[in-house]
Amino acid sequence: MKKPGIPKGTRDFSPQEVLKRNYIMQTIKDCFTTYGFQPIETPSFENSDTLMGKYGEEGDRLIFKILNSGDYLSKVNEELYAARDSNKLTSKISEKALRYDLTVPFARYVVQHQNEIEFPFKRYQIQPVWRADRPQKGRFREFFQCDADVVGSTSLWQEVELVQLYDAVFSKLNLNGVVIKLNNRKILSGIAQVIGAEDKLIDFTVALDKLDKIGEEGVKKEMREKGVSEDAIKKVQPLFDSVGDASQKLDMLRELLGTSETGLQGVSELEFITKTIKNLGLQTATLEIDVTLARGLNYYTGAIFEVAAPFEVKMGSIGGGGRYDDLTGIFGLKNMSGVGISFGLDRIYLVLEELHLFPETVSENTKVLFINFGEHEALYAMKAITKLRQQGIPAELYPDTAKMGKQMGHADKRNIPYVVLAGEAEMSAQTYTLKNMKTGDQEQLDLKALSGRLGY
Amino acid sequence: MKKPGIPKGTRDFSPQEVLKRNYIMQTIKDCFTTYGFQPIETPSFENSDTLMGKYGEEGDRLIFKILNSGDYLSKVNEELYAARDSNKLTSKISEKALRYDLTVPFARYVVQHQNEIEFPFKRYQIQPVWRADRPQKGRFREFFQCDADVVGSTSLWQEVELVQLYDAVFSKLNLNGVVIKLNNRKILSGIAQVIGAEDKLIDFTVALDKLDKIGEEGVKKEMREKGVSEDAIKKVQPLFDSVGDASQKLDMLRELLGTSETGLQGVSELEFITKTIKNLGLQTATLEIDVTLARGLNYYTGAIFEVAAPFEVKMGSIGGGGRYDDLTGIFGLKNMSGVGISFGLDRIYLVLEELHLFPETVSENTKVLFINFGEHEALYAMKAITKLRQQGIPAELYPDTAKMGKQMGHADKRNIPYVVLAGEAEMSAQTYTLKNMKTGDQEQLDLKALSGRLGY
Repeated sequence: MKKPGIPKGTRDFSPQEVLKRNYIMQTIKDCFTTYGFQPIETPSFENSDTLMGKYGEEGDRLIFKILNSGDYLSKVNEELYAARDSNKLTSKISEKALRYDLTVPFARYVVQHQNEIEFPFKRYQIQPVWRADRPQKGRFREFFQCDADVVGSTSLWQEVELVQLYDAVFSKLNLNGVVIKLNNRKILSGIAQVIGAEDKLIDFTVALDKLDKIGEEGVKKEMREKGVSEDAIKKVQPLFDSVGDASQKLDMLRELLGTSETGLQGVSELEFITKTIKNLGLQTATLEIDVTLARGLNYYTGAIFEVAAPFEVKMGSIGGGGRYDDLTGIFGLKNMSGVGISFGLDRIYLVLEELHLFPETVSENTKVLFINFGEHEALYAMKAITKLRQQGIPAELYPDTAKMGKQMGHADKRNIPYVVLAGEAEMSAQTYTLKNMKTGDQEQLDLKALSGRLGY
Repeated sequence: MKKPGIPKGTRDFSPQEVLKRNYIMQTIKDCFTTYGFQPIETPSFENSDTLMGKYGEEGDRLIFKILNSGDYLSKVNEELYAARDSNKLTSKISEKALRYDLTVPFARYVVQHQNEIEFPFKRYQIQPVWRADRPQKGRFREFFQCDADVVGSTSLWQEVELVQLYDAVFSKLNLNGVVIKLNNRKILSGIAQVIGAEDKLIDFTVALDKLDKIGEEGVKKEMREKGVSEDAIKKVQPLFDSVGDASQKLDMLRELLGTSETGLQGVSELEFITKTIKNLGLQTATLEIDVTLARGLNYYTGAIFEVAAPFEVKMGSIGGGGRYDDLTGIFGLKNMSGVGISFGLDRIYLVLEELHLFPETVSENTKVLFINFGEHEALYAMKAITKLRQQGIPAELYPDTAKMGKQMGHADKRNIPYVVLAGEAEMSAQTYTLKNMKTGDQEQLDLKALSGRLGY
C-alpha cells in the first residue's frame, strides 16, 4: 500500500505550526477587537452565481467548483452533453463553488443581511479561501485570509484608523520596522488624465507598479509597449524622481496634477491621512507615500495600502487593502462605500520565523508528565493530575507502565519541562518528586507545593 | 436583481453567533490543552481515494466532490463518456473531495507523518466538515467537529481521562448535570455470542440502541424482524430489566455473559473505568453504564461513549466517541489503537442558549464610542482612543460628523455601554465627558482617569 498523501498546494499543520499560526491570528483578532471590528463567518461554499464573474476570467477559472450530488448528469440535455465542452458542462453539473476570497462573500453578506446590520459596519473575517492556482513556493491552493473592512461611511478617519491598526498588529507581534505604503487611486486617475492616457489607465498603473522590480527603464519600456506616448512618459518623470518626505511628495503631485480635479482630490486625501498619522504617531511602523503603488486591482477607488516587511527580510507585501466605493453594487445595493485591509498570514509566519520572533511560550504544551509505575501509583498520580488540570496546568500521565527510560524519553522528545516520579515512598509520605528535565534537579513536594511550583 | 442567498444547509454567522461559538470552542480547546492534547489541522479537501470507501456506500454518496480544473473532460475516454453514467464519470472528472469527518484525515495524517510523531500521540482537531445530507432542522451541510484522540496505546487510563475531559469541558461551560454514558463493544459482541446471534451482531445492537426511542417492545419487535430468535430475545431480558448502580449492572452482565471471554473482558474494562472514576470523582457530570449504547458505528472495538444533555433539555447526544483498535489500518499502518471523543458544537450551542448559560461578557464588543463633533474634536478624540486601544480597551470614533441623536443611536443599537463627548470645553480643560448609556450618568475625566474607569 503506498503512503497516503494530500492534494498538491495543500498542507498539513503540525501542533507547532498550528500554535504559531494561532498566535498570529489571535494577535490580529485582539487588535481587530480593540479597534471595534466584529467577527462574522460565511459558508465555505457559495452558490456559483455569487462568485462567478466577480474576479475576471482568470478568477473564474481558478475557482474550485463542487460537483452536484446524486445523478448530476440527469439535468444535462442531450445536445449540451453531445457537445462535450467542459466549460459549458460545468454550470449544468455544478451549482456551488468554494470561496475565492472574503470580500465578495462579505458583500453578499451585507446585502443579504442589510436590515439586521447597524451601519457603519466594522467586520473582520478570518477564514480559509481556495484557489486552483498553480502551486509554487509560498503559494497555496488553500490559505487563510484575515480581513477587516468598514462599510457604510466614506469618512477618511477610517483610513487613518486602518494605518494605526496595521501598526498596532505588527507592533504587538514585535515585528518592528514595517513600512505602510499609501497611495490613492484618484491620483493615478489624475495622472492618466493630465498626460492624456485615460484610456490606458490600467496598463499605465500596472507598469508603474513594477518600478521596484524592473526599475525606471523597465517601466518606461513597458509603457511604450502598451502604447503610452513619449510625451506622456516625459510628463510623469517627476514620479520617478520623487524623493523626500510626505509634504515634498504632495507638493510634487500637486504640481504634476495641475488642474485635474480628481487628482487633486486624491492629493488632499493623502494629505489628511499622512498629516493626521503624523499628529497621532505610530508605535513601530512608518507610513510612506508611494505613488507607484497600484496593487493591480481595478476595484479600488480611493486609498490604496500595502505593507512591506522590514527591509532586511526579502519578502513581498505582508498586507494590503484600500477603498472601494461600490462594494455591494454587484449584489444590487448601491452607495455602500467600503474600506478594508488584509493581513498575509503565511508571509507573516515566514517573516516571524526568519527573525525568530515567535515567543517561546507559543509552542509550550504539557508542563509535567507523571511517570507510570503501575496501577496503584498511576491512580495516586491521577489524583494530582486531576487537581493540576482543574487549575489550568497542563499535566499528563504516561498511559502505560513502560520502562523508565522510555517514559523519560517521551517527556524529552515532547519538550515537557518537568516529570513527576511517585512510587511507594512518595505515596506513603503523600508527596511527589518533581524533576526538572533541563537541570536534572529533583525536589519532594506535597500536592499544594507542587501546584504552586508548576502554576503561573 | 434578486437578493443573494447561500446554499441550503449552510449558514452565515453574525458577530453575536461567532463570539458565542468561539466561547464554546475556546473552552474546549483550553481543556484539551490541560489534558495534554495538541492541535493539528488538515486540508479541507483530500485526494478522493483517501476518503472514498471509508464511510460505507451512504457515506460515499454524501461526500462533496470537487470538479477538476481546466478541461476536465479531456481525460474521459469516448466509451465512458458515451455511457452517460454519473457514478462512473465522477472518478474521471473529480480527484478531490471535501473532508467528511476528522477521523479519516487524522488516520491519514498519522500514517503520513508517522516518523515525525512521538507516540502515544494526543491530538485535537477543530475544523469544519461537509456532508451532502438532506438539510433539516439542526442538520447542516457544513458544520464543525471538535475531536480529541489518542493513538498508539491501548491503556485504559485514556478512557478514564476522556470521561474526565467531558466532565471538565461541560463543568467549565456551566452546563451541569450531563450524563456520560459508557458501554463496551466487547460486551455487545459477548452478548451476541452467548445468545447465538453472532451473525446478527449489527442488527441486534442497532435495535438495542433504539431502546430510548421505541421502548422495550419496539426493540424486541425489530429484533424479531431481523431474525433474532425468541430464545435469544428471552436470554437478553436482563438487559431490559437492568437497573441500579454500576456494580449491580456489572454483576448482571457477568452473569449474562457466562463464559464469553470477549464479553468478560468488556466487563472488566467497564469495571476499571467506573471504579477509577468513582475514586477520582467528577465535577458536575455523572457516569452511567448503558448497555444499550451502540452508536450505530461498526468501527468501535472497545469503550463506547455518549453524552446526553441534562434531563430538562430535549436534545439528543451532545458528544460521543470510543476506542477503535485499528485506526490507521486503512492506510497500511497496523497495530495502532486509538480512542477518542467528539463534542457536538451546534447542539451544545443550542443547549447553552436554551439554558441561558452564555456569559454576558461573551458578546461584549466596543466599550466606548467617541462622538464626532468635527475635525478638530475628532483628532482630540482619536488621541484618547489611540491610548485606550494600546491598553486593550475597545474604543471607537463615530466616523462622521453626524447629528448627535444619530451617533447616540448608533451606540445604543450596538449595545456600547459608554460614550465620550468632547467638544471645545473639554478640549481646553484637557478632559473627556464620559456618559454611561444605561444610567445616563456623566462625569468629566482626564485621560488617565478615563482609561482607569474603562479598563479591566
